[in-house]
Amino acid sequence: MWDKVDLLEKLAGFDEHFKPRIVAMLNDYKVLVVKVEGEFVWHKHDETDDLFLVLKGHLTIQLRDRNVELDEGELFVVPRGVEHCPRADREAWLLVVEPEQTVNTGDAGGPLTTEDQWA
Amino acid sequence: MWDKVDLLEKLAGFDEHFKPRIVAMLNDYKVLVVKVEGEFVWHKHDETDDLFLVLKGHLTIQLRDRNVELDEGELFVVPRGVEHCPRADREAWLLVVEPEQTVNTGDAGGPLTTEDQWA
Repeated sequence: MWDKVDLLEKLAGFDEHFKPRIVAMLNDYKVLVVKVEGEFVWHKHDETDDLFLVLKGHLTIQLRDRNVELDEGELFVVPRGVEHCPRADREAWLLVVEPEQTVNTGDAGGPLTTEDQWA
Repeated sequence: MWDKVDLLEKLAGFDEHFKPRIVAMLNDYKVLVVKVEGEFVWHKHDETDDLFLVLKGHLTIQLRDRNVELDEGELFVVPRGVEHCPRADREAWLLVVEPEQTVNTGDAGGPLTTEDQWA
């Protein structure tokens, strides 16, 4: 059986931005931590919602019609099919929960697409 | 479309222990916040894992063969079928993620069984 996870400790263990690390599985969902800085890429996931929780810093989730501004301890679920583009002017640390087959760049693909690895 | 959720603000909005409040849905999973104090009831969920993240305070997840001690910022996924009994000597605030049909007391039932309501 797996052990507990200290989220900030896991995040302290790597430096790359937009490279999520799996810290736990919940059935067929992956629980990820990720450091972000700068702007990601506009994309959507037609098959799933996407949960973001800010653990440190501030995250802007740009939607086509508004921005969602998240401080530490705030979460937002991007509904399936909704285009979004995360942005962080300074480094932010996040928890993300999504189905295991979810690709980080969704329908957009491109150079920021990454294979999740375990923290 | 739903809005962002400030987890501590949601938790500050109610006082009851072991009465989870839904704050968001992630596909067919519910995202809950709950205040706990004292000992819950031994139970298991044969059909699902169960994610606990401590937002405030300290939680002991008693398993039959060991205790998992969680401080703020630490999470643990109780695997499906594993008997567990959460305990908090002082009030703790938690985030829980589980499929929407999950009953809080699992196979145990009894007086602590509760219908989830939205925060």
